[in-house]
Amino acid sequence: METLSTVRSHRGEQGVYRHESTTCHCPMTFSVFLPPQADNGPVPVLWYLSGLTCTYANVMEKGEYRAAAAEHGVAIICPDTSPRGEGVADVPDSFKLGQGAGFYVDATQEPWSTHYHMYSYVTEELPALVSKHFNVDMNRQSIFGHSMGGHGALCLALRHPHTYKSVSAFAPIVAASETEWSRDALTTYLGTDEDALKAYDATELVKSGSRVADILIDQGDADAFLEDGLRPWRLEAACKDAGIPLTLRMQPGYDHSYFFISTFMNDHIKWHAERLSA
Amino acid sequence: METLSTVRSHRGEQGVYRHESTTCHCPMTFSVFLPPQADNGPVPVLWYLSGLTCTYANVMEKGEYRAAAAEHGVAIICPDTSPRGEGVADVPDSFKLGQGAGFYVDATQEPWSTHYHMYSYVTEELPALVSKHFNVDMNRQSIFGHSMGGHGALCLALRHPHTYKSVSAFAPIVAASETEWSRDALTTYLGTDEDALKAYDATELVKSGSRVADILIDQGDADAFLEDGLRPWRLEAACKDAGIPLTLRMQPGYDHSYFFISTFMNDHIKWHAERLSA
Repeated sequence: METLSTVRSHRGEQGVYRHESTTCHCPMTFSVFLPPQADNGPVPVLWYLSGLTCTYANVMEKGEYRAAAAEHGVAIICPDTSPRGEGVADVPDSFKLGQGAGFYVDATQEPWSTHYHMYSYVTEELPALVSKHFNVDMNRQSIFGHSMGGHGALCLALRHPHTYKSVSAFAPIVAASETEWSRDALTTYLGTDEDALKAYDATELVKSGSRVADILIDQGDADAFLEDGLRPWRLEAACKDAGIPLTLRMQPGYDHSYFFISTFMNDHIKWHAERLSA
Repeated sequence: METLSTVRSHRGEQGVYRHESTTCHCPMTFSVFLPPQADNGPVPVLWYLSGLTCTYANVMEKGEYRAAAAEHGVAIICPDTSPRGEGVADVPDSFKLGQGAGFYVDATQEPWSTHYHMYSYVTEELPALVSKHFNVDMNRQSIFGHSMGGHGALCLALRHPHTYKSVSAFAPIVAASETEWSRDALTTYLGTDEDALKAYDATELVKSGSRVADILIDQGDADAFLEDGLRPWRLEAACKDAGIPLTLRMQPGYDHSYFFISTFMNDHIKWHAERLSA
């Protein structure tokens, strides 16, 4: 693992790192914010998964997470959103497919299956790497994310309820196999077998029996993707049927941007910190 | 004045605006964050002046100022750092001169004197525009900034002590007429008459009798520009002689970046809010 940069911020250290991923078969870059509490002992880990077009860097610069992470003593780890590089399959003129749009799946279809293994990367390779290099307590992990990353966070938490103590999301894609703009990506990566798709659909996972303790979702009601792409009420209905307490907060006037994410970042980190220390 | 964008954030509104500046003789862009309190009455104004290479946008995206501004009910206004455009004099391969490096002076030397009037722009034209379009109380203004913008904030406050209720800075250039990397810019814009230069040098202004009630400065001790360009102890010594209380906080391990600025943003906004409401 190579350190690309470290900088002091909010009494902790914001770092950017690169490594040769054996899962994605390419160099991968990610960021880690270590709160000051990591100087004194292992700290819990909160994974943040970003949305379409983003890298690890967008939320690092605009997410305003460090103040709350330092207050609550939580490490924030932000993976990239896909494999990247010249040899990695891509659709340069699409923001919904290819590089920057990994959808946190393990692709099974050519040419994507060579590199697009973000599911295994985020659940296996990166946690192993992080636990080796940073003063973190891997028995206390939680996960959250935005949009496509909210989809990733929800799916990972539902599929690994014993790994992640808690899950939340900003404006997530909650039914990735149904909504047009995500279904296209999923079928490209996974084919059209419905069972394969449903394994990466939070609403379908809940319907088929996956469970988490509770879920927090913030969603702006001025979000341009709300009606076409996000529709959090689908997950809300499924959770109601399943008896999963879901707090869906419709936030008046907020859009899909980092101006929205940063507004509610403190609330989400506090939510996770309470569950990580429970 | 044209509205380029508005977005809801931290219960307020972050906007970006453009207008034809009669002072700089070109279109100028700036940002305004209106806290939620502006819905109920005029709010005080806190001007933020940015550093070399920046526009209004850098601190808007990375400065993490909205949470504290909303808490304290203060509008944050961020001007650009220079006139810009094809017809505006520039030195494209220098970050210390020309576009992005206005140094908040009224240039007197050709070709700069055509457009580079950032001093009058920030002290006269922009306040008049802002007071006309936003629900702000221009009897309660304060000012802060970073690096070159810290220089600007200090000079403007020292020259207009009745306009600005308070002044603070992150890693400011405190003696712009002395330090090599700022003296080059000042002499280019203003010529070599020492009196003209000293009017844009915070330390010299204090030495020659300008006064403010007090000053807050945060400075990272790992800032690569500390020894060569910033040297806050020069202003500290002048303030000591002048009886101006200056709080200079040397922050261990912090550099010159927005990771540093954002760490201490809350403290500065609180400092100004207390003085704006006094």
